[in-house]
Amino acid sequence: MPYSRQSLAKRDAKDPLGAFRDEFILPRGVIYLDGNSLGAMPKAAMARSQELVSQEWGQDLITSWNRHGWFDLPTRLGDKLADLIGAKNGEVLITDSTGINLYKLLSMALDLRPGRKVILMEGSNFPTDNYMAQGLARQLDRGHEIRFAERENMAVQITPEVAVVALTQVHYKTGAMFDMEAITQMAHKAGALICWDLCHSAGALPVDLAGANADFAVGCSYKFLNGGPGAPAFLYVAKRHQGKATQPLSGWWSHADPFAFERDYRPAGDIHQMLSGTQPILSLTVMECGLDMMLRADMDAIRQKSMALGDVFIGLMAAHCAGSGFALASHPSAQERGSQVSFTHPHGYAIMQALIDQGVIGDFRAPDILRFGLTPLYTRYVDIWGAVEAIKTVMDQNLWQDPRYARRARVT
Amino acid sequence: MPYSRQSLAKRDAKDPLGAFRDEFILPRGVIYLDGNSLGAMPKAAMARSQELVSQEWGQDLITSWNRHGWFDLPTRLGDKLADLIGAKNGEVLITDSTGINLYKLLSMALDLRPGRKVILMEGSNFPTDNYMAQGLARQLDRGHEIRFAERENMAVQITPEVAVVALTQVHYKTGAMFDMEAITQMAHKAGALICWDLCHSAGALPVDLAGANADFAVGCSYKFLNGGPGAPAFLYVAKRHQGKATQPLSGWWSHADPFAFERDYRPAGDIHQMLSGTQPILSLTVMECGLDMMLRADMDAIRQKSMALGDVFIGLMAAHCAGSGFALASHPSAQERGSQVSFTHPHGYAIMQALIDQGVIGDFRAPDILRFGLTPLYTRYVDIWGAVEAIKTVMDQNLWQDPRYARRARVT
Repeated sequence: MPYSRQSLAKRDAKDPLGAFRDEFILPRGVIYLDGNSLGAMPKAAMARSQELVSQEWGQDLITSWNRHGWFDLPTRLGDKLADLIGAKNGEVLITDSTGINLYKLLSMALDLRPGRKVILMEGSNFPTDNYMAQGLARQLDRGHEIRFAERENMAVQITPEVAVVALTQVHYKTGAMFDMEAITQMAHKAGALICWDLCHSAGALPVDLAGANADFAVGCSYKFLNGGPGAPAFLYVAKRHQGKATQPLSGWWSHADPFAFERDYRPAGDIHQMLSGTQPILSLTVMECGLDMMLRADMDAIRQKSMALGDVFIGLMAAHCAGSGFALASHPSAQERGSQVSFTHPHGYAIMQALIDQGVIGDFRAPDILRFGLTPLYTRYVDIWGAVEAIKTVMDQNLWQDPRYARRARVT
Repeated sequence: MPYSRQSLAKRDAKDPLGAFRDEFILPRGVIYLDGNSLGAMPKAAMARSQELVSQEWGQDLITSWNRHGWFDLPTRLGDKLADLIGAKNGEVLITDSTGINLYKLLSMALDLRPGRKVILMEGSNFPTDNYMAQGLARQLDRGHEIRFAERENMAVQITPEVAVVALTQVHYKTGAMFDMEAITQMAHKAGALICWDLCHSAGALPVDLAGANADFAVGCSYKFLNGGPGAPAFLYVAKRHQGKATQPLSGWWSHADPFAFERDYRPAGDIHQMLSGTQPILSLTVMECGLDMMLRADMDAIRQKSMALGDVFIGLMAAHCAGSGFALASHPSAQERGSQVSFTHPHGYAIMQALIDQGVIGDFRAPDILRFGLTPLYTRYVDIWGAVEAIKTVMDQNLWQDPRYARRARVT
């Protein structure tokens, strides 16, 4: 046996990130391994949301736009996030949704590479990125093509026809990781731009957009950044590209002088140019709580613990659940995985439903993937023990065969 | 003197909407006449936001997407709003921002009128609508033109080249109202489609999109609907147009089967097709509080009181502030005004700042407009008395000449 519950409890006791768990609300009796779908609630979010509603909205009303800095939330929070993803002040915004931000950036990228007609993407990516690119190409109606490839053969597809490479660094199903720097270099060598989707990277592992010389990036804030359900997403535009092309969703927040109420559009020229309209202030404000906590944590420690948690999970599954039909869907080497571990199983959906009823929350991704998110700020080593114990129970006692679990319901 | 404070207090006592005021938080010592920029906070929003954060996010986490109906918020709340704007179930969504929704609809409209190249708009409209249309035309790059006209001569500009007429029903500065039914008829007679911006209409006056046979509409929920700062906006697509054209921001929420995670886009075919990505659940959830209150109020009573409040304001200004340099910028006839009263004054900015320091909150719109929003659910007749008294004080005592008020700051 590679690990015992006791040895794992000892690792928790020595964990330099251990104290962060107390800063979250976590439901009793639940092992939550779905922070890569919706991050847990920082305790600070409760007070912050109350203050926002009762004082800023309730008492200060319209004056809060200046008094409480609502106007500056997208840029001020963007500057905070910049530190986590290797960007500089004035390169990041918190605004809109990941898909809408991708649309803006891909549109800019195509404008910056007018002679090229290919957007290179990963066919098995979380599909909203594909759908947004297809929506853009359809709307432009100028012969743009989405070229789909898979990770294994992505490099050879970066040809001189490619205008922009749009990839998600960490795969949502398997956790497979792209080498951001290497792929960015290949894209640039071929004369293409690159846009990284960091949905499963930001807050989960060290990201260095400047170091990789990335052009654009997007990502969501409700997974590893613990920003709250549907919290506004982020986007990144390297300084060298700002003001060089106009994004199409050019609402008044992107105008050079929004409060002049001019009839005609004039682009802001800096990162503000990527804004569109008024943002949901409650969701945007509360998002800062998770961000602030993340900024106090050491990202290398997060990554080290994330890799160790994954190794423990894989080791325990091999030791306790061999012969139950699970196959590792993630890379066996921690360096090649994001902050999750995934397994395939032909009865994956029913098993995940049974597990959830046992108090272990992961998620299922069609057709056969059981996905477990590892969130080092609140996931303990003993949680991995408990999760594998529950999986063993579900399999040994055939709990997954309960007819209640046969139906496929919606999971996100 | 047309009105006395006493007579106005009597009208408040008899006001059939009077009880709604107690359902709002309103700051003490303030007369809030800016509900057309940010509506006041329904008391219910406090408990609802706490429940959302502590229970739905904090305790139920990812399961809330199904358990607490997060998935259905855009359509469920849209169906509620439909009742207020003369739409049917399945025609309205609460999602994204007004500008982004307009972009989707205008793009669809141009697809539905492929031979026509003109978008007809009002040059003096709140400019984000113009900017979004200009962004769309620039991106399409197929010779589309934004034709700007003003209200007085809008009708003659609805020519056979026009693909879509995109107008805001109630003007943000003056409160001038379009006859929705008449203009819609003219548009259709010319073979054009129409998209109404209801930012200053929804919750302020009876709107009958079906009765007017409107094609599309957008609007925000943070003004007269009291949905909270930056709460998600709405959009309307008449059933007859649904699935007939594809909007460009086609994220996974607009897919025919979002949870099949198919590689390629397939449009939903119904109102879901107008969605894009994941919505800010805190802001979206809290938005329901204002909506529910509005649904309990009688819209005709709201309109009657709104018109009366405006008449009282205009009458009191004529009686108490004649000769101070104010000119009525709104229509003198209540039937022709939205739920606001506006005045021009060469020192408008400084006067509004001085007024705010007197506890009367309206807003200033460049170059010279003082704008006062009338929100019948919480604005009392005596508030109008108090506001005009404060204006008289500011003018009689030259308070507006204080050098602090000389600088033009940002106001929304």
